[in-house]
Amino acid sequence: MERLLRIYRQEERLVAGLMSGTSLDGIDVALVRIKGSGATTQVEPLAFKTIPYSAEERQDILAACSLEKVDVAAVCRLNFQLGELFAAAVIDICRETGLTLSKLDIIGSHGQTIRHLPGNSTLQIGEPAVIAERTGVITVADFRVRDVAAGGQGAPLVPYSEYLLYRDATKTRVLLNIGGIANVTVLPAGAGPEAVVAFDTGPGNMMLDACIEKLTGGRARFDSGGSMASQGAVHTGLLAELLGHPYVVLHPPKSTGRETFGRSYSEGLVDKFTAQGVSAEDLMATFTLFTARSIALGYHNFIFPTYQADEVVVSGGGSHNRTLLAMLRQELSGLAVFTQEDLGISSDAKEAIAFAILANETVSGQTNNLPAVTGARRPVVMGKISL
Amino acid sequence: MERLLRIYRQEERLVAGLMSGTSLDGIDVALVRIKGSGATTQVEPLAFKTIPYSAEERQDILAACSLEKVDVAAVCRLNFQLGELFAAAVIDICRETGLTLSKLDIIGSHGQTIRHLPGNSTLQIGEPAVIAERTGVITVADFRVRDVAAGGQGAPLVPYSEYLLYRDATKTRVLLNIGGIANVTVLPAGAGPEAVVAFDTGPGNMMLDACIEKLTGGRARFDSGGSMASQGAVHTGLLAELLGHPYVVLHPPKSTGRETFGRSYSEGLVDKFTAQGVSAEDLMATFTLFTARSIALGYHNFIFPTYQADEVVVSGGGSHNRTLLAMLRQELSGLAVFTQEDLGISSDAKEAIAFAILANETVSGQTNNLPAVTGARRPVVMGKISL
Repeated sequence: MERLLRIYRQEERLVAGLMSGTSLDGIDVALVRIKGSGATTQVEPLAFKTIPYSAEERQDILAACSLEKVDVAAVCRLNFQLGELFAAAVIDICRETGLTLSKLDIIGSHGQTIRHLPGNSTLQIGEPAVIAERTGVITVADFRVRDVAAGGQGAPLVPYSEYLLYRDATKTRVLLNIGGIANVTVLPAGAGPEAVVAFDTGPGNMMLDACIEKLTGGRARFDSGGSMASQGAVHTGLLAELLGHPYVVLHPPKSTGRETFGRSYSEGLVDKFTAQGVSAEDLMATFTLFTARSIALGYHNFIFPTYQADEVVVSGGGSHNRTLLAMLRQELSGLAVFTQEDLGISSDAKEAIAFAILANETVSGQTNNLPAVTGARRPVVMGKISL
Repeated sequence: MERLLRIYRQEERLVAGLMSGTSLDGIDVALVRIKGSGATTQVEPLAFKTIPYSAEERQDILAACSLEKVDVAAVCRLNFQLGELFAAAVIDICRETGLTLSKLDIIGSHGQTIRHLPGNSTLQIGEPAVIAERTGVITVADFRVRDVAAGGQGAPLVPYSEYLLYRDATKTRVLLNIGGIANVTVLPAGAGPEAVVAFDTGPGNMMLDACIEKLTGGRARFDSGGSMASQGAVHTGLLAELLGHPYVVLHPPKSTGRETFGRSYSEGLVDKFTAQGVSAEDLMATFTLFTARSIALGYHNFIFPTYQADEVVVSGGGSHNRTLLAMLRQELSGLAVFTQEDLGISSDAKEAIAFAILANETVSGQTNNLPAVTGARRPVVMGKISL
């Protein structure tokens, strides 16, 4: 507690942020220096790395996320195993950066979502007690549950940090993150936190990854640069079926995940349309266009009627998919679409940095959800503190 | 954080403790006033009640604890449902006591264990973010995981509070708690916390409850007062098989749970010996004697060789089972066996009070595990704080 008190009083903190997203690429860890908190927050990124999951770790997580019944003992063990991996990631980045662990003030960890039931409950694992014990650093984790307890969706959470980092007095910025799921954040020019709009538009890389894995018998885990999709033609019937998904037209606040757009949904469609003789390339082209269009429809239906966007900034793994980006530019014709790299900011680090910022807010006693975005009844201090 | 700071500095705190044990009787909630922390801790019990689980709630928890595969979505939901029930229990006892919720300083919640894998991992549910959100009270929960992270068994935790409450300069006290699992704590006369010995001796009410439920087709949930057992004779073959269980002779530190002595083990034996024509009464008598003897063997093998006990104090639901207590007195012949009620202290409230005390230690920044008891490498501050 004395240490928590000291950190609470510090003007400046060294914080590590940990994120492991639904795309299961690996563990993102960011090291940042944060001055102040709330509206005065200033963030200086110091280091970032992604530690890929091994094939076995990925399989274990996928098994725990399965919609089929699972072994609770396996989930119980995985919670601790992931805690070890998260701790190792922090130790690793500190060593590479030459930072002594004891200089680190806090760790903020998102954990790995294994179930997200919007409006009801959510479950992230990656035991923070293990992270705190291995590193000796106060660890803040398990953010989403408090927002859900306050009546929110528990998602999205990144817009809070985006608001602190990217709000602008004169420009309306639209931020698009394409991870496993795609989500959008609108930062209206000169607006306060209550005016931020953000929601999951639908799938990001999730369906594309599941499809190419199924189509290649597991040889390809993702469509690198969108290359397979670029060789195909869009199949009208499949596209129509995809666009009929009720999530696309659902009004925000809304959030989604693997339960809705995961393997069982994607593989079912691949099986159905492969049986009709549709080629792998055509399937990938169609899924990619659906991903682009479900994003664009989110903009057209729920953003543009209210806000005049000045720029769209794309981040996340999906920003490396050139076919997806080309389709997105076409769907959003007339708008300047940048990638976060175009603006000189690391796209991949964004979410890990977000959880460093959210943890900084927790130990500052600042509320760190955006009720306008999550649907929560009130602003709350998310995150549980392990001393 | 300002509120946590204020509570940290307070000399005296109003604390609610929540416990839901492996016997699934219901939610125990205690209200106490605690002065000081660590060695200076003084506890004044103010109120206690048990809120029984409905048959449906009990079934949902049993389903989540099942050794069969389970639906993770059901576990995810149950975590939040139990959080609601725990919060309601605190609100309830405060209302009955005439205490305004805002006067309550902290809540300590054990949660409901749904899996305990000693030496590897453990999983308690009953979302503390929900408790904190519904009550507006800082909630400390999820204690066991930090001890496991530090190499301990994550159990037993109650001996820490027993040490603070019941240690004596001149008497060696042996405390026996008979819940779903039976556990023993030895408080050597005049000894420090590092000399406390405690371990799970094996089943408490768990096998007895599972057997009578199976034998009566669910009409009886427990053998009230030990009445069915009192009408039977011990079956030598079954007793020998039970006493052959490797846990009985396993050297402490050791802890156990539903995974080892739960339904599948008990029902298997009931089926086997019922098929051999053994009566329900004889089965219950035998299971009851095994329970008493496995406790006594724990004493004879691991306590009496080192400590001269002055008194044995029995608490927990099993202390109401007269047959079990009579058998225990015989197995421990020559020793004074009291129930905690004999000494004028509420037996049922003990565990709920323990978690109020453990939470009081967490917010005081005091380590609150006993490495000598759990096997942890070092004392740690258990419990995650939800603001």
